[in-house]
Amino acid sequence: MVSIPAGISTPHIMIDVAQLEKNISKMANRVSSQGLKLRPHAKTHKMLEVAYRQLDAGAVGLTVATVGEALSFALQGVAKIFIAYPLWVDESQATRILELLKRSKLSIGTDSVEAVHQMSVTLGEKAAKIRLMIEIDSGHHRSGVAPQDAVAIAQAAREVGMKVQGVFTFPGHSYDPDGIDAAVNDEYKALAEATRLLRESGFEIKRISGGSSPTAALSDSSVLTEVRPGVYVFGDAQQYELGRITFDEIALSVASTVVSRHQGEANIPRRIVLDAGSKILGSDRPSWATGYGRIVECPDARIIALSEHHATVQWPEDLELPAHGTQLQVIPNHVCQAVNLVDSVLAVHPDETNEVWDVTARGLNF
Amino acid sequence: MVSIPAGISTPHIMIDVAQLEKNISKMANRVSSQGLKLRPHAKTHKMLEVAYRQLDAGAVGLTVATVGEALSFALQGVAKIFIAYPLWVDESQATRILELLKRSKLSIGTDSVEAVHQMSVTLGEKAAKIRLMIEIDSGHHRSGVAPQDAVAIAQAAREVGMKVQGVFTFPGHSYDPDGIDAAVNDEYKALAEATRLLRESGFEIKRISGGSSPTAALSDSSVLTEVRPGVYVFGDAQQYELGRITFDEIALSVASTVVSRHQGEANIPRRIVLDAGSKILGSDRPSWATGYGRIVECPDARIIALSEHHATVQWPEDLELPAHGTQLQVIPNHVCQAVNLVDSVLAVHPDETNEVWDVTARGLNF
Repeated sequence: MVSIPAGISTPHIMIDVAQLEKNISKMANRVSSQGLKLRPHAKTHKMLEVAYRQLDAGAVGLTVATVGEALSFALQGVAKIFIAYPLWVDESQATRILELLKRSKLSIGTDSVEAVHQMSVTLGEKAAKIRLMIEIDSGHHRSGVAPQDAVAIAQAAREVGMKVQGVFTFPGHSYDPDGIDAAVNDEYKALAEATRLLRESGFEIKRISGGSSPTAALSDSSVLTEVRPGVYVFGDAQQYELGRITFDEIALSVASTVVSRHQGEANIPRRIVLDAGSKILGSDRPSWATGYGRIVECPDARIIALSEHHATVQWPEDLELPAHGTQLQVIPNHVCQAVNLVDSVLAVHPDETNEVWDVTARGLNF
Repeated sequence: MVSIPAGISTPHIMIDVAQLEKNISKMANRVSSQGLKLRPHAKTHKMLEVAYRQLDAGAVGLTVATVGEALSFALQGVAKIFIAYPLWVDESQATRILELLKRSKLSIGTDSVEAVHQMSVTLGEKAAKIRLMIEIDSGHHRSGVAPQDAVAIAQAAREVGMKVQGVFTFPGHSYDPDGIDAAVNDEYKALAEATRLLRESGFEIKRISGGSSPTAALSDSSVLTEVRPGVYVFGDAQQYELGRITFDEIALSVASTVVSRHQGEANIPRRIVLDAGSKILGSDRPSWATGYGRIVECPDARIIALSEHHATVQWPEDLELPAHGTQLQVIPNHVCQAVNLVDSVLAVHPDETNEVWDVTARGLNF
C-alpha cells in the first residue's frame, strides 16, 4: 500500500493505483485462462477510471445494481451493461430504461412472471430489445427462484415477445470462512439444473453467470460462461479475513488520524480513537470479522467499536500507543460501502503524484 | 407518516414535514421548560431546511461533528457552532477553521493537552478566539477524559492563552434498552465532578453540555446547562425499539418496492425482498434490534437480512405476502446513516405537495 500523501485532510479514501491495476490484470488473466468471460460488478467502485481499466483489460461489459448506475456508465460510452437485479419497472423506471436502450446493449435480471409482464407493459414494444437473465437462488435465499421455477418465467417472456439470454446467481453464502467451497458447489448445481431444464424446454441459454469475489477465482467453464466479481479491484478486510487475498493485495484504505489516546486505568480501557468512523468505513461487520476493519500499520490492532466519526482501537499491549496526530491507514471491512460514502477519492500513483477521481455513480440507488 | 407520493422512483428517502415540525417543537418546549438550552446535533439531518426550523424554534446554535459540516452551515449564516469532537488541527484544518472563525462563534471539543498545544501552534494568535469544551468520558469509553484529568487540559489551555468555556460528554451507552437511566446518572456524575474540580482550580465553567436523544428528555438543569440531541427530529427504529418514541412520531422513511416475492417451500424461506438495502438504510444493527429497520405498513414484519440493494423481509405467517410492485415505507435503524447516503430527500407537506431538500453537508467527513 502506498503511503499517505503529505497535507491531506483526514479521513480520506485513497487508492493505490499500481495495486489496483495489478488486481484488475490478475483477475482478467485468471478468468480468461479458465475460459470464462469477465463482467465485473461496478457497484464496488462506481468510478469511470476503474471501469475503463477493467474494460481495457478485457472485461466484456459491466455489471451494475441499479438503473441509475447503468445510466451513469452508459452516458460515458460503456456499450454493454447487465443490471443484475430483479427490477420492478414502473413508469418512471421505464422512461430511464428507454434512454439506456438507446445507448447500450442491456441485460436485466428477473425472478418472476409478474416482473416480466410488468416490463412488457411499461416498456411496450421496446421490451423486445432487453436480454432477460433469470435469477436463480443457489442457497443465499435473497432474490432468485429455484431452478425448476425458471421455465415458467422463460415461457412468460416468450409469450410477451421478450428474449431470455441466460441465467445468473449470486452465491452470497460464500461470504463465510467455512462456506466458500460449498457455495461454489451450490452455485454450479443450481445454474446447471436451471440451464438443463430451460434447454429441455427449448430455450437457448447463451449466458450462465456466477461468481462473487470469493468464488470467482475458483470458477471454471464446466458450467459457467462468465463471472461478475466486484470487490477484487480493491480488496477489503472481509476478503482478507476470508483468506481470499493477502494484505499486500489491498488497494484502498482510509487515511485517518489519531484524535484521542488513553493509556487506560482501572475500569477504563487502553485505546486510541481514529477519526475514521462508520460515515467513511461503513458499518458492515459480519459475525466472523475480527473488528470493524484492519489497520495497515498494525495488523494486530482491533477496531472494537465504531461511531459515525470515531473508530475505537484496541492497540496490542506490548506496543506503545501511537502519538496524537499520527496518521494511520484503515482497510474497511466492506469496500463497496466505503466508496459509496464519498464523492471522490485520492488516487495515488507509484511516482507519488496523485489525482482526484470522482465516484460518479455514488448514491444512485434507483 | 404521510403516504408515498405517486410516481416517485424507489428507494427514496421521504420526510413528513408536519411530523418533523412537531418533533422540533416538542423537544424545544421540553428542553426550555427544564431550564436548559438546546444545541441540536446537525449531523443527523445535514440540511439547511431542518437547521433553520430548529433555530426558529429556539435552538441557541448547532452542534456538528466535523469542520466541513461547520463550514457548510456557517456559510449559510448559522452564527453559533459547536464542533463536539476532539479535533486534531493540522495545517489544512487550521486554514478552514480560520475561515469559520470569520463567520461564526465557534466552540471546539478537546480531550488532551496535546490537542490544545497543536491548536495553539497551527492557529496562532487566532486560537484565543476558540471556546474550548473539554470532553469528559462518562462511561462510553470512546473519546473524552476522566473528570480528574480535565484540570490539566484547562491549565494547558490557559498557558497558551486559550479559553475553556465548559465541559461536555456523550453518554453513548444510553443506546441500550436497559441502560438509559444508568447512563443519565453516569453523565450527571461525570460532568458534575469535572465541573467541581475545574471551578476549584479557578476556571469559570459556563457550559455543561450533555444529552443524547434517548437521555435529552430526561435531562434537567440540576447539573447541565444545555443538551445536544440529534435523532429526535426524525426518530428511527432504534429510538422506537428503545422505547423513547412512538411509531407515530417517526418523520422519515424510505419508500421502497417489493421486487421479489417467495411463498416458501421445503428448506426455502417464505419472504419478500424490498429494493431498500444498506446503501440507503445503512447497515447499523445493534444486538438488541429486531432487524435492520421496521416497516410502517406491517410493524410485525422483520428485515432479517440486508445487502446493498436488497432487504429480505420475513412477513407474518398469518398475513398474505404483498404483491410484486407494492410500495412500502421502511424506517431505518439509525437515521443519521440513512440521510448521509443520499444527496437529497423528498419533503412531503400536509397538503401532499412536496419539495426536494438537499442534504447540503452530506459526506463532509473532514
